[in-house]
Amino acid sequence: MSNEKVNKLATAIRVLSAEGVEKANSGHPGMPLGTADLAAVLWSEFLKFNPEDSKWGGRDRFVLSAGHGSMLIYSLLHLFDFGLKIDDLKNFRQWGSLTPGHPEFGLTNGVEVTTGPLGQGFANGIGLALSAKMLAAKHKTELVNTRVFGIVSDGDLMEGISSEAASLAGHLKLDNVVYIYDDNDISIGGSTDICFTEDIPKRFESCGWNVQTVDGHNVDEIRESLEKAIAHKGQPSIICARTKIGLGSPNKVDTSGVHGSPLGSEELALTKKALGWSEESFFVPEDVTSFCSEVIENNKKEYNEWNEAFSQWSNSNPEEAKEYKNQQDKVVPSELEDELFSELGKIEKDATRNISGAALQILAKHLPGLVGGSADLEPSTKTLIKDSADITPEDFSGRNLRYGVREHAMGAICNGMAYTGEWIPYTATFLVFADYMRHAIRLAALSHIQSMFIFTHDSFFVGEDGPTHQPIEHTASLRIIPNLDVYRPADGIEVAACYMMSVKRTNKPSAHLFTRQGLPLLERESFNREDAYKGGYIVSGKDNSEVVLVATGSEVALAADTAKLLSDKKVRVVSIPCVEIFMEQSQEYRDSVIPQDSNIVLLEAGISTGWSSVVGNNALFITKDSFGASAPAGVLAEKFGFSANSVADKINNKFYC
Amino acid sequence: MSNEKVNKLATAIRVLSAEGVEKANSGHPGMPLGTADLAAVLWSEFLKFNPEDSKWGGRDRFVLSAGHGSMLIYSLLHLFDFGLKIDDLKNFRQWGSLTPGHPEFGLTNGVEVTTGPLGQGFANGIGLALSAKMLAAKHKTELVNTRVFGIVSDGDLMEGISSEAASLAGHLKLDNVVYIYDDNDISIGGSTDICFTEDIPKRFESCGWNVQTVDGHNVDEIRESLEKAIAHKGQPSIICARTKIGLGSPNKVDTSGVHGSPLGSEELALTKKALGWSEESFFVPEDVTSFCSEVIENNKKEYNEWNEAFSQWSNSNPEEAKEYKNQQDKVVPSELEDELFSELGKIEKDATRNISGAALQILAKHLPGLVGGSADLEPSTKTLIKDSADITPEDFSGRNLRYGVREHAMGAICNGMAYTGEWIPYTATFLVFADYMRHAIRLAALSHIQSMFIFTHDSFFVGEDGPTHQPIEHTASLRIIPNLDVYRPADGIEVAACYMMSVKRTNKPSAHLFTRQGLPLLERESFNREDAYKGGYIVSGKDNSEVVLVATGSEVALAADTAKLLSDKKVRVVSIPCVEIFMEQSQEYRDSVIPQDSNIVLLEAGISTGWSSVVGNNALFITKDSFGASAPAGVLAEKFGFSANSVADKINNKFYC
Repeated sequence: MSNEKVNKLATAIRVLSAEGVEKANSGHPGMPLGTADLAAVLWSEFLKFNPEDSKWGGRDRFVLSAGHGSMLIYSLLHLFDFGLKIDDLKNFRQWGSLTPGHPEFGLTNGVEVTTGPLGQGFANGIGLALSAKMLAAKHKTELVNTRVFGIVSDGDLMEGISSEAASLAGHLKLDNVVYIYDDNDISIGGSTDICFTEDIPKRFESCGWNVQTVDGHNVDEIRESLEKAIAHKGQPSIICARTKIGLGSPNKVDTSGVHGSPLGSEELALTKKALGWSEESFFVPEDVTSFCSEVIENNKKEYNEWNEAFSQWSNSNPEEAKEYKNQQDKVVPSELEDELFSELGKIEKDATRNISGAALQILAKHLPGLVGGSADLEPSTKTLIKDSADITPEDFSGRNLRYGVREHAMGAICNGMAYTGEWIPYTATFLVFADYMRHAIRLAALSHIQSMFIFTHDSFFVGEDGPTHQPIEHTASLRIIPNLDVYRPADGIEVAACYMMSVKRTNKPSAHLFTRQGLPLLERESFNREDAYKGGYIVSGKDNSEVVLVATGSEVALAADTAKLLSDKKVRVVSIPCVEIFMEQSQEYRDSVIPQDSNIVLLEAGISTGWSSVVGNNALFITKDSFGASAPAGVLAEKFGFSANSVADKINNKFYC
Repeated sequence: MSNEKVNKLATAIRVLSAEGVEKANSGHPGMPLGTADLAAVLWSEFLKFNPEDSKWGGRDRFVLSAGHGSMLIYSLLHLFDFGLKIDDLKNFRQWGSLTPGHPEFGLTNGVEVTTGPLGQGFANGIGLALSAKMLAAKHKTELVNTRVFGIVSDGDLMEGISSEAASLAGHLKLDNVVYIYDDNDISIGGSTDICFTEDIPKRFESCGWNVQTVDGHNVDEIRESLEKAIAHKGQPSIICARTKIGLGSPNKVDTSGVHGSPLGSEELALTKKALGWSEESFFVPEDVTSFCSEVIENNKKEYNEWNEAFSQWSNSNPEEAKEYKNQQDKVVPSELEDELFSELGKIEKDATRNISGAALQILAKHLPGLVGGSADLEPSTKTLIKDSADITPEDFSGRNLRYGVREHAMGAICNGMAYTGEWIPYTATFLVFADYMRHAIRLAALSHIQSMFIFTHDSFFVGEDGPTHQPIEHTASLRIIPNLDVYRPADGIEVAACYMMSVKRTNKPSAHLFTRQGLPLLERESFNREDAYKGGYIVSGKDNSEVVLVATGSEVALAADTAKLLSDKKVRVVSIPCVEIFMEQSQEYRDSVIPQDSNIVLLEAGISTGWSSVVGNNALFITKDSFGASAPAGVLAEKFGFSANSVADKINNKFYC
């Protein structure tokens, strides 16, 4: 390619980006202006894509981890014909537009992951790269050879999540990762020198990365570094590109002022003039358009070749191809449900973390896309897929991931895999550490992807480890994340139901909360699966409504025990394994399960917040609203009022005195 | 010191630790067994402390970042006479004991910080070290020469928070930090090789640390490395100590099985035998006791000298000494309150983030301990103390911290400063990124320390940045953390009240939520400060109770506007700047503010969860329960139903149709 064409493409990106921000009177021009040269070389000479089939399996992925530079990707998606029109660019940051402030997966064609919260994209990209390695190994085809290109900023690298993800990527030798570090020395507070003086190349080398340093505005150097990075095997690559933030703006280049504010109309005019550009707004010259078309045509040749090769592979490997298709379509075989319920329904007494472990074996057998791992807690979270190997740098064909004690990156890497739509990836740690990965969970919910977050040790029943390790507010804290289903099953039957629901609800993430301690199989009256699929149902006492005990997870057994003590009263036991799904039911159904004129008792070993809207304010709340304590779980149950005798006493005192 | 004495001390630590875990039948023996030699050298030859005055200002700090090895510190606190008796060790992990599963600040004398959640202690220690540097610079005395010694584990170093904290510590050249890395190659999942293959020395070098590598069981090497680390100036130090987890246990040494389970009585007996120890349980030989007494006596000499020198300094610098004392006592001068209310009460219209900025200037003038900074967002969070300098590696006398984009470490470093009791430290970032630092906030609450967490851009009124940057569930998510006060003031008067409350409530952390957008000064009937100090109060319409509009923060002005539209009804406007404090008031007071038989309307630009218990289930909820969108704030207000007209319509529809 000629540098002239690339340079002009870069200028078009610069001007469109600055114009978009100017029109919106809001946004971040500095980053697109600073990285336009890098993006122009990458997109015109290296990135494999086809705008007419933007989900093409043979494509590369582009991750704009520094999502505040969103006009960069919107300009690229416009120029390379992904369906974004000039009017979309003019509607940057406006209501209902395809060009929101930060790139959103699912909204804008060509946006592979939702970015903006710093460090998330960096880790998502590692998940995308891992996903490709695993897919290729699983289906024994080299056709899945996705490379992940990302632009990462100072801010991304300051966030701990990027250190976690970089460490794991280096460990796994993910050589299909090529990140470009936009090293512009400017942060919001001024020069990065005021707080960020790491030796970045050395840091990445210490994590097993291949590191290069280039002038981020020299097309030849950029091209050469990308060639080398792509050719480099056995390590992920990072190219530290020295850039000038806001390059092109004569008066604002290299200042923190250009980071997050429009150039202003005067400076925009000066910028266009300095760049030798037309004064016309949102102008794209003919030769840039034709250069982009040329690039697309070249890509289509590769696309056609790839599709041809993929057809051949499919024909030669029909079984493998079928499983691949099933995985992509997230097919749930009909026998899964029966097997889950019959196997887990047999378990007379066990911790739900163990029952979950048994469930994962069954799910893994039927769902080729189910893969996952924990933050160094396998022996406790019981999340190992037993007949499968660990993912290692040498072999990506296993299904068990060893995340290390890196919860935040674990969440975001899992999201990276989920973004591909090829997997049902899960993570696992103790519930109290959901805090460490909370923002990754939020982004999964915002992006409507099917990440599955498993949390064990789900209440103060953790016991001796004490208040630092006892979740109190965590169940409630997950329930309040919009678009996240939170499951807290009470026994094997409910574990089966919860996993079935979360496997089928493919457009949202789920959190599964399991106990450390053993729980009995509940004695049910006339149970059918559809009951549990409503998120909440009557376990026993269908004809009773004098006292209604409402509980989740481990407290359902406590409710059942309490009901036995209250034999002189007409008592119903209700279980709500998923509040979100229960609240989706009709008011009529909900009232039939929890009649609001009953004496309602709510039992949950966690904070009461959120329950008033389900059980009313007049209910008796048996909850734990302050921090826990270190002691054996049985002692805590007594001290915190979670014994059947104590609950029965409180019921008598509240409703029968 | 003779190595023989040190070795025997180490053996005593090993045996006591293993016995404690065995008696509890729960806990983590591997870490204390593996690090006993390191701890023995450190405590007997280097650490400055006085058990009779455990808060001595001249002491060093010991941080057990790997808090699961709690029996190590409990054994040390017993042997060095901090008040923990053998019976306390026997009560390890039992109800009401001084020896919970993980070390808890405030519960056990000599425990400087609460640890267990990995990486937190690492970052807390950086806060302690920074605190000492700042205290010395502020009061111009070299007597505050605290050194911070920590033991950190593989797990600590895998967590991103430790990368963030290490980077900042290196940047600030905190040469009073000496961390020992317990490099035992074993994690819960087995060998650390399965996921953790970083070059740790190189990683720390890249962040500006002084690195040594030693045999963690060789007393001479340990001693020499500590001497070198202490003597090394201009960089924090880490000593990578190659250790064997569970050393002393003949059959379990170097296995992951010894990490988190008791040795078992048989193996404990074999361990004692192999170590040449008495069979007697919890045995401490006479010569170990006398060696420890010797160490304490030596420390007391230093203690007396230090106190003498401090007296001299105080006499020579009476003004400085008085300010130091005021800072330690957290004295709140009486004029602060008047000045805050009068200055902020004048502000006719402004964003509360700006008003907070003005408040911080006043607070800083009167409270010498107020210091803080943001995660690279000063221009947006308005948290700079204007007449004060930045903290830099060369000068620690300023009050402004530049945390970089490192929210999690920021929270934990702030906590480290708060643990000293010498500061009222604050952090700042956008509310949506509270997620990134959530666990640090939780630990501040659990530890009853006065960290102040400032969050701006507190709702979808952020506008164009879009859903990735618009908090929805975050206000609620903070309110559910036990022991945390969450303030969301509506105007300058309330900003004054909220800061006054949080400054005076010294035994708990606070979160202050501020708007990006401008808000008017509320028109109040007969306001007095005591009203606001109740957490919730009547802004207008004291004699009205037909419609009661309950709101917080930016929605109080919306409520007031709505009230004007409902001129045909008797409308009251209630503001609840702090739900926690409001709920501490008598039921009578609360009912007088929000009469439960009124038509109650709740307005909050966030998720409704939690409000039912304040306003009842029959209230009209004007809330935002799903993710936001990218558009100008005014457009979002219309679209999301947060205009006075829309609210008035909903009220008419609900209560008057």
